[in-house]
Amino acid sequence: MATRDQVRRQLHLNLFLHDTGHHEASWRLPESDPHAHLSLEAHQHLARVAEAARFDSLFLADSPVLWGDPGRRPSGKIEPTVLLAALAVSTSRIGLIATASTSYNEPFNLARRLASVDHLSGGRAGWNIVTTAGDAAARNFGLDEQPLHRSRYERADEFLQVATRLWDSWSDDAVVADKEAGVHALRERVRSIDHRGRFFKVDGPLNLARSPQGYPLLVQAGSSEDGKEFAAQWAEAIFTAQPTLEESQQFYADIKRRVAAAGRNPEHVLVLPGIVPVIGETEAEARELDAELDRLIAPQYAVVQLARTLGVDAGRLQLDRPLPADLPDEDAIEGAKSRRTLIVEWARRERLTVRELIGKLGGGRGHRTFTGTPVQVADSIQHYFENGAADGFNIMPAVLPSGLEAFTRHVVPILQERGLFRTEYAGSTLREHYGLPRPENRLDVLAVENRRPA
Amino acid sequence: MATRDQVRRQLHLNLFLHDTGHHEASWRLPESDPHAHLSLEAHQHLARVAEAARFDSLFLADSPVLWGDPGRRPSGKIEPTVLLAALAVSTSRIGLIATASTSYNEPFNLARRLASVDHLSGGRAGWNIVTTAGDAAARNFGLDEQPLHRSRYERADEFLQVATRLWDSWSDDAVVADKEAGVHALRERVRSIDHRGRFFKVDGPLNLARSPQGYPLLVQAGSSEDGKEFAAQWAEAIFTAQPTLEESQQFYADIKRRVAAAGRNPEHVLVLPGIVPVIGETEAEARELDAELDRLIAPQYAVVQLARTLGVDAGRLQLDRPLPADLPDEDAIEGAKSRRTLIVEWARRERLTVRELIGKLGGGRGHRTFTGTPVQVADSIQHYFENGAADGFNIMPAVLPSGLEAFTRHVVPILQERGLFRTEYAGSTLREHYGLPRPENRLDVLAVENRRPA
Ligand SMILES: Cc1cc2nc3c(=O)[nH]c(=O)nc-3n(C[C@H](O)[C@H](O)[C@H](O)COP(=O)(O)O)c2cc1C
Ligand SMILES: Cc1cc2nc3c(=O)[nH]c(=O)nc-3n(C[C@H](O)[C@H](O)[C@H](O)COP(=O)(O)O)c2cc1C
Repeated sequence: MATRDQVRRQLHLNLFLHDTGHHEASWRLPESDPHAHLSLEAHQHLARVAEAARFDSLFLADSPVLWGDPGRRPSGKIEPTVLLAALAVSTSRIGLIATASTSYNEPFNLARRLASVDHLSGGRAGWNIVTTAGDAAARNFGLDEQPLHRSRYERADEFLQVATRLWDSWSDDAVVADKEAGVHALRERVRSIDHRGRFFKVDGPLNLARSPQGYPLLVQAGSSEDGKEFAAQWAEAIFTAQPTLEESQQFYADIKRRVAAAGRNPEHVLVLPGIVPVIGETEAEARELDAELDRLIAPQYAVVQLARTLGVDAGRLQLDRPLPADLPDEDAIEGAKSRRTLIVEWARRERLTVRELIGKLGGGRGHRTFTGTPVQVADSIQHYFENGAADGFNIMPAVLPSGLEAFTRHVVPILQERGLFRTEYAGSTLREHYGLPRPENRLDVLAVENRRPA
Repeated sequence: MATRDQVRRQLHLNLFLHDTGHHEASWRLPESDPHAHLSLEAHQHLARVAEAARFDSLFLADSPVLWGDPGRRPSGKIEPTVLLAALAVSTSRIGLIATASTSYNEPFNLARRLASVDHLSGGRAGWNIVTTAGDAAARNFGLDEQPLHRSRYERADEFLQVATRLWDSWSDDAVVADKEAGVHALRERVRSIDHRGRFFKVDGPLNLARSPQGYPLLVQAGSSEDGKEFAAQWAEAIFTAQPTLEESQQFYADIKRRVAAAGRNPEHVLVLPGIVPVIGETEAEARELDAELDRLIAPQYAVVQLARTLGVDAGRLQLDRPLPADLPDEDAIEGAKSRRTLIVEWARRERLTVRELIGKLGGGRGHRTFTGTPVQVADSIQHYFENGAADGFNIMPAVLPSGLEAFTRHVVPILQERGLFRTEYAGSTLREHYGLPRPENRLDVLAVENRRPA
């Protein structure tokens, strides 16, 4: 097995944590703990199950605002860097990816917290970089409405310049800890960064030595034009919602091309679409679970959220009719542009009523739901992986923990059997799991270049 | 013992964590791990030793800037909320107090992270509220120099108004988790706060249910006039550096008077001075350890830091002469006002040379060092406690972990024997350890008042 592991391209699997599951009605099932979103133990259990199955990482979504309607489903979350620090203690190998906003954080504070998680976890931290859509979040930070979409991505770009330089402000070999001489670090290898930009002015250095991975793995999750350009510059892994194989293939090719155009190695940027597996021993059993979940959706709340994403008045959406023809187009949306387009295209392609659309979105919020037996799920994953649609997947069980347990018990062994997924961790850091190189320290490179005779 | 525990006023003990110890040269001892400041395991060990001795809490200092000189001693820290989340998993009863700045954080983000630690730890979180002295920190956040001292405290006051209202934005009973009806939380018990102030504009609600303690224990550590006024308004515990019994008594009386004047119960605000115990089996052995540590201080670096605190040029300080007579006074200092005054008064009172002053500061940065046998240390603690100088202590071992182990093994049993310190935890939250009431939800109180007929 070990040799097969080494020769064959292997896929990557993340667990997208989401309290009782990604189906919005999952908390109403008899088996679900409706307080799981606030429970350390519930998260520890999921983390341990995923690690035992050799998943690459855990992933936590986030936004600095009360997302959705607290009446409708579990709302509010433990802040991800804090939660992942706790889970770092409860696990030993699995990666830990936290979402955090470039629009509503200061680079110094966020760069430091992420580096802290990397230190505590021995090099397992990742950062899902988001610009945060929506006016409601902006109103928690002194603004009346969100900055323009373009401007958020410009800030994100400068944020990354600052953060990477802060992470590089200590050379990897700065700390010498020479007790005899009384010298702890070499001062000239701890450098200020003196950043002066449009959004930020940051002197540095960071108040933390360079971390095991150099810096956290950089992940990105926005699929608009600006989002994809940003990803091509900075991302090492990309999460994306692609409902069909064709869209996934197009997205995959588009990203790899943009990465190459940016002068980077396309193999060093992994594309990881989401998949919501609904698994049954038989197809009929899987369908029944799906139907049971959809019956538990309360459509009156779901309509409000759909209307917000589409930028229309909720009164204009009628449950048993298709979407109105005259929706605002992507250019008019300052929030999550790509999510809006995905939803509209899906509804039109499959001629869905609002009620049917809500059922699909309730399952995975735009991600691909796949309902079937373990072999069918494994076949679909393999098909995407081997046909230019994915380097791996963000696994989004409809129900947790049972959907994860079904996946790790029944699907993972098939993928391992086929040589598509690791049976043991080969490395200890998240980048090692992903097969990506550790980033060099660019301030060190600069310092060496400056020392060369001109 | 249990009955004695209940009838007698008992003291409170925190462990002030500080990598290899509070003496600045401690990292140079053969026993010290010079990488302890970055090590999860080193922090876990200290946390477990303190918990086994029934300490009230762990305390982490912090500033969003590289503090001090990285050449001179271990510099840079794991961010406290992240580190304490990890330690929450490694312990089960001890309190977890993180320092965080009101000047360089956004209230929404910080309130949420602290509430997150309170959730994860089952109600053990505390916040040491600081305004952060120094221009260097300001320069990591877009400023050229620090805001004025007065203005920093005005921002701190508004920050606390916002944070406490965010923590109260969910009623304790907001979550009903009614699966049958499909209602997770009662919408009218999750309220926006719509804060509009001089420094902040925050809509809320927080994206997190109210935490086990309602909100983290509020701790404060600045001793200037503004600092004491702020403490009288908000603090439930106060950390302070008081080098003599008389100063400690004056400070204690002053604080309790201010708290009463602010309309609060003085028993609900604990005064906790720092103490650096240097413990030996005999007095001579303790003195020898002290002397060994002082020999390891490199005075050329210490002078630079002393000069910065005093607001003078380092060239004006001569190692074997007293401090210059014409130092800038407290009013001229925009940084840490009270620390500067403490140092100057100490040097004048004891007629210290700069070298001697550096020795004293190297031990505890202005905190009281006590060198002696376990009985002498216990006697001194008891004397302070019973003579209006302290409700407990922030224990700051000169060397870690050995100084903590000496304290828990040899001093704590004496204090327990005398009925001055608990032998078991009686409660499970940090406020229960401190004997303080859980804060009521002020937005609930308001809501009830509004419902009453006028
Ligand atoms: C798997 C996945 C996870 C995401 N997680 C978050 C998240 O946690 N927080 C967030 O603000 N946006 C998240 N996004 C991105 C938003 O959906 C949205 O695309 C983004 O905020 C705006 O980017 P865009 O306009 O470039 O699409 C995620 C996207 C994907 C595909
Ligand atoms: C035990 C103790 C711990 C402290 N910890 C911090 C700290 O971690 N970060 C910080 O900025 N200030 C800390 N301070 C406060 C500063 O020393 C300084 O007093 C404060 O920043 C300015 O307040 P002041 O001018 O009111 O004295 C601490 C003080 C004491 C007594």
